[in-house]
Amino acid sequence: MLQSGMTEKSDRKKEMTRVSKPDFFFSPRTVAIVGATPVKGRISNIILESLRRIGFPGRVFPVNPKYSSIEGMDCYPSLTDIKEEVDVAVFAVPAALTPGLIRDARDDIKGAVVISGGFAEAGAEGITLENELRGLSSSVRIIGPNCMGIYDTVSRLDTFFISFERIKRPQKGRLSIISQSGSFAVTAMDELAAEGIGVARVVSYGNKADMNEADCLEFLADDEHTGAVAVYIESVSDGRRFVAAAAACSAKKPVLAIKVGKTAEAAGAARSHTGAIAGRYEVYRAAFKKAGIIELGGYEDFISACKAYGMGLPSARGRRVMIITDGGGIGVALADACAWARLQAAPLPKELHDEMKKTVPSYFAVSNPMDLTGSATDGLFADSLEKTMAGDHYDIAIVAPMWGPPALSDNLPKLIADKARKSGKPVIICTPGGEFTRSRMELFRKQGLPVFLTPESAVKAAMVLADGKITQRAPV
Amino acid sequence: MLQSGMTEKSDRKKEMTRVSKPDFFFSPRTVAIVGATPVKGRISNIILESLRRIGFPGRVFPVNPKYSSIEGMDCYPSLTDIKEEVDVAVFAVPAALTPGLIRDARDDIKGAVVISGGFAEAGAEGITLENELRGLSSSVRIIGPNCMGIYDTVSRLDTFFISFERIKRPQKGRLSIISQSGSFAVTAMDELAAEGIGVARVVSYGNKADMNEADCLEFLADDEHTGAVAVYIESVSDGRRFVAAAAACSAKKPVLAIKVGKTAEAAGAARSHTGAIAGRYEVYRAAFKKAGIIELGGYEDFISACKAYGMGLPSARGRRVMIITDGGGIGVALADACAWARLQAAPLPKELHDEMKKTVPSYFAVSNPMDLTGSATDGLFADSLEKTMAGDHYDIAIVAPMWGPPALSDNLPKLIADKARKSGKPVIICTPGGEFTRSRMELFRKQGLPVFLTPESAVKAAMVLADGKITQRAPV
Repeated sequence: MLQSGMTEKSDRKKEMTRVSKPDFFFSPRTVAIVGATPVKGRISNIILESLRRIGFPGRVFPVNPKYSSIEGMDCYPSLTDIKEEVDVAVFAVPAALTPGLIRDARDDIKGAVVISGGFAEAGAEGITLENELRGLSSSVRIIGPNCMGIYDTVSRLDTFFISFERIKRPQKGRLSIISQSGSFAVTAMDELAAEGIGVARVVSYGNKADMNEADCLEFLADDEHTGAVAVYIESVSDGRRFVAAAAACSAKKPVLAIKVGKTAEAAGAARSHTGAIAGRYEVYRAAFKKAGIIELGGYEDFISACKAYGMGLPSARGRRVMIITDGGGIGVALADACAWARLQAAPLPKELHDEMKKTVPSYFAVSNPMDLTGSATDGLFADSLEKTMAGDHYDIAIVAPMWGPPALSDNLPKLIADKARKSGKPVIICTPGGEFTRSRMELFRKQGLPVFLTPESAVKAAMVLADGKITQRAPV
Repeated sequence: MLQSGMTEKSDRKKEMTRVSKPDFFFSPRTVAIVGATPVKGRISNIILESLRRIGFPGRVFPVNPKYSSIEGMDCYPSLTDIKEEVDVAVFAVPAALTPGLIRDARDDIKGAVVISGGFAEAGAEGITLENELRGLSSSVRIIGPNCMGIYDTVSRLDTFFISFERIKRPQKGRLSIISQSGSFAVTAMDELAAEGIGVARVVSYGNKADMNEADCLEFLADDEHTGAVAVYIESVSDGRRFVAAAAACSAKKPVLAIKVGKTAEAAGAARSHTGAIAGRYEVYRAAFKKAGIIELGGYEDFISACKAYGMGLPSARGRRVMIITDGGGIGVALADACAWARLQAAPLPKELHDEMKKTVPSYFAVSNPMDLTGSATDGLFADSLEKTMAGDHYDIAIVAPMWGPPALSDNLPKLIADKARKSGKPVIICTPGGEFTRSRMELFRKQGLPVFLTPESAVKAAMVLADGKITQRAPV
């Protein structure tokens, strides 16, 4: 009983003359959950729920000899019993059982997502099991083990086994994330969801018995749904292949990466985490540079970059930053942070200075940072942004409205967004503060402006936009 | 008609044989608002409201020849018409009028808080006016001009002229903040209020015509209500006196300082902000070191330090950090950030490692970072913290629970707090994430644990606690 568009197994086997390109992971028509259970809260049950919630449009096959049906779906004793071809089989069963189950089903499935831990990260026995998995990858492409798998808003696949109550999934967007660490990917996703930033594909590939960062980058380079790629790396499997894949991808869209385990101690931690041998940090830096990757220093950089590129901001043409604020102290702190980030918060050219002096109130100095003082108005912010970003004086603006001045209204975000669009340059919002300020962040986000709560994080976003090549401008 | 405890003016004048020590600013019995108005939203009206809200226990005298009463209070034509001595007169009138008004009232008031801008920060005319103010400081102590003045939860004085709707005031606490920048002080206060961190005294002294950072530090050194001092500096007025005052203060309690205007460009911004000549950053660094000041690199450091010391965490005895998490990737990112901050996330000593191996589940590696994995429980977090922080292996713990694992419950914060207290060492919480995670921050705060949303900010808090001398333990 095949649905239209489905292929008979026998047909598919004929097609498989060599190892598949792993693109099918990002457009599966059928998914099997091995070890499926009706018990709420169990990993494989959460995955069934995830697929329902995201609205996976293909067919889902629960597999477990203990059940004949689960939540209204037919349940199969084994993968071999499924009549249709299975694009992706998700394994959430004990590590020791996994290689055998994949071997038995190697003619029945194209790809496996192995969620289970207990492989190379867990010592000698686990290494043996992981080598068995690796041996199977000539017939079945494998993501994992020890991973979260795929969260994909395009194909609507979600194998992340974290409860929806605790971890929110981001909406559809144009940023893709690939991560060796599942918890890092999950945490970033949850934070991006809270910030209203969407994603296209998220892949947590854990121990990389088969699929690694290079495979993902090769796919994402040509993926029309992906506008920018953010990568979390503990270790790279094949340096040369990685650089080639990243260079090909970064020629088309921004590729941002964080390498963790920079020191010997942290590298040790990475080993017990995903079994990775982290290697010397300097080697990674050189490889990133060669591949045109924008390096991110840490978690804050990672989130700042995801926010900036995830909202579709253009890369900057250069490193000249205009700072506009009504809080003098925050302005100076932003200027300091720019200097740290090798961004130039240079003074206004004389011509521009003199022109602006004519139109602004006499009591404030026209300078960079531009301090609009407690007398700031929506109009002063908008005019200052428009005038300084016109022409070729600055490449990026950081606008930092403190909400104290009574004349500032809820119209401010829209006015700033209009001038930002008009300038065609990246404009970043920095609004440190408490309750009222935080309640106003949403107004900026709705206007497509990324908002940061500290000068440092705003400047980090500016920095990655300046590090991006203009040819990598993320198409939105 | 004097209240008991009040002094006749004539008596007070006899006392004033020399310039007063400025301590009275922090325990005023009477406050006059010069330029008071019943018009809502005006600066001087907001100050009247601020005094009412904070419950200023002394007498308030509105001064304005235009009104005979304001909001039920008698209004005086001039300061000289007030029968009682005035401890603090707040001036929110045009800059050009201010020196004359203070001169006329120099026998009637002890101290002036000059809110108004338009002085040295505004150019030549303003510099002349500011010099006039300075000349008056032999008879009247002056805070300002171009400042927010004092927010004091001990004396219950609040001259901050920012609306309550937009900027929240922190509760009573043991942290005092002194700041050249009003907007920086306001923004920090608002953020601390949102984080549930209390303050004792906040002084924004702006252009420093008279009172400067040294005067404030001299007072705060002996202030029993102040457990730690955070300072925002653009420029220091008298280097030698500043170092002496800061050294005397840092001998008794932690003194933390941020110097902004580190580069020539940012220093230029400071000049147009508070008229300050920022000076060479290296000179400041040397002075901070000599004075025992813990240097803060930027706004994030400042807030992290205020959170750590403001919650009364003890300084650390050393730089050895234990990281406990259930998110492997975040653990490695924390280890990287520790290395950056010159903190040692050193491996567990063999004895401790072997002891812990006996009690934890076999599938996870006992290491630093300790990764409790998705199988983490409240008990595993608490036990790991207790065991690693006992003895003399580590000086600080960073506990980073990602809320994904279903076994983690709302009891976790209390369990961690209990073990933290038992250890007598500083314990910092790091919980990056979205909606659910952020909703759980309050649970940690209620237990007296400072919570940070990024590895970097948590590590910055650990860094300032490690930079603090053990003799500076803030008494709570």
